[in-house]
Amino acid sequence: MALHNPVEAELRVRFAETDAQRIAYHANYIVWFEVGRTAFLEATGLSRDRMRALRFRFVMAEVQCRYLSPAYFDDRLIVRTALQTLSRRSFTLRYEIVRAETGELLAEGGSAQVAVNKAGKAVEIMPAVRAALEQEA
Amino acid sequence: MALHNPVEAELRVRFAETDAQRIAYHANYIVWFEVGRTAFLEATGLSRDRMRALRFRFVMAEVQCRYLSPAYFDDRLIVRTALQTLSRRSFTLRYEIVRAETGELLAEGGSAQVAVNKAGKAVEIMPAVRAALEQEA
Amino acid sequence: MALHNPVEAELRVRFAETDAQRIAYHANYIVWFEVGRTAFLEATGLSRDRMRALRFRFVMAEVQCRYLSPAYFDDRLIVRTALQTLSRRSFTLRYEIVRAETGELLAEGGSAQVAVNKAGKAVEIMPAVRAALEQEA
Amino acid sequence: MALHNPVEAELRVRFAETDAQRIAYHANYIVWFEVGRTAFLEATGLSRDRMRALRFRFVMAEVQCRYLSPAYFDDRLIVRTALQTLSRRSFTLRYEIVRAETGELLAEGGSAQVAVNKAGKAVEIMPAVRAALEQEA
Repeated sequence: MALHNPVEAELRVRFAETDAQRIAYHANYIVWFEVGRTAFLEATGLSRDRMRALRFRFVMAEVQCRYLSPAYFDDRLIVRTALQTLSRRSFTLRYEIVRAETGELLAEGGSAQVAVNKAGKAVEIMPAVRAALEQEA
Repeated sequence: MALHNPVEAELRVRFAETDAQRIAYHANYIVWFEVGRTAFLEATGLSRDRMRALRFRFVMAEVQCRYLSPAYFDDRLIVRTALQTLSRRSFTLRYEIVRAETGELLAEGGSAQVAVNKAGKAVEIMPAVRAALEQEA
Repeated sequence: MALHNPVEAELRVRFAETDAQRIAYHANYIVWFEVGRTAFLEATGLSRDRMRALRFRFVMAEVQCRYLSPAYFDDRLIVRTALQTLSRRSFTLRYEIVRAETGELLAEGGSAQVAVNKAGKAVEIMPAVRAALEQEA
Repeated sequence: MALHNPVEAELRVRFAETDAQRIAYHANYIVWFEVGRTAFLEATGLSRDRMRALRFRFVMAEVQCRYLSPAYFDDRLIVRTALQTLSRRSFTLRYEIVRAETGELLAEGGSAQVAVNKAGKAVEIMPAVRAALEQEA
């Protein structure tokens, strides 16, 4: 199932991100999802500075990743990120990681984020953020 | 649902593992699952050296983590790891991460591993490995 | 030159910390120095909670590491940490990383830390911290 | 002292790379040096694939970094990398990390690399690699 209206971010696999199997270490895909999420949020207008001005904070509630084919040192990868669901206090994103040259799908996954206040308590997603996220839906 | 017969590994949250929300960064839980998995495999008799002697290799097929409560710098954590399923070419593990002092559950998750040969192709789990894993079931 | 009165911390090389040369990735030694530094500070009475109560903060001014022999997945390592110098606003530490079984020296290095206030400005090291560090000199 | 003929690589600070002081964690600068080094080597003609074809391998012998001013989440940084020395079996590089918008110098450092054979033993740098590195001197 292709992602709807994904935002793309490109990266290259760092040597730091490889492991002794000579492939990219699996936990780094979760970091790459973050790279995709940051690009996605910026594309919606929710840049770091805008989120700070709005005092919009979220925490991770869940992540999941399925690995289909390995990535190697210095590979060019594209992270595709799209909104999946948007509810009162949380939103979920879907990710695909593909090889830039071939488009081969290497991994896919998802994450759930919950809006929180400064104390870390779940709160409603504020209208400005909701509007930004909805335009990507 | 408590884990059946878990193996425990202890760790302390490194400053390197925190993020600008002043909590442990979420992708590090996937690394901590690896710490738990290594302890689990060693407890079954599948230490690094034994796995190497057997030429038993596996790759990650899937990881998933649900975050319940944050961990902070220097917190003492326990990773509990247990076998969930064992099939012909793969096995799945479940993990719980709890605060050592209180036992509070901070996160729980799972991973699926597939046995592979040197070329990375899925193969049957060899009898010696199967026997080791089954004793933990 | 052996370290004077070092504090020891033990760790095992995680698979996450290896790289495609099948050895521990070099930047992780800097993280292991942090593991040593945390143990050193705790041994002086400057635990996380004590430092927080004192509002003692420091930032890294310099790190350096010399690599002598590689470490491998699941190796047991000992990080030895000792105070080198203590001046008005800063202190330096020396580190050795040795293989636990053999005592073989794998790497050695140092770091310089500067005391800062909440705004990140260099300040004098407060007397309580100075007294704690001096007892290790 | 400005670097002679540096190669530039750009990156953005990932949330994964921040720490509980709300700044980029210091060990990540060593990883960013690797990003710079990879770009530098590629610029000399020593891409991953070319190095593999030549069977040219090196290991880190030393790294050093001096921190001048912190970097923050999502900051755009430039890593400048230049050859410093080239000897029979080793070469050293210098690095500068600057804020992309302002050119402010945030950190500077160096690394020493030793050419090794497959067994990890120090060997002479082969002529093709020497020629590539020299053109950057």
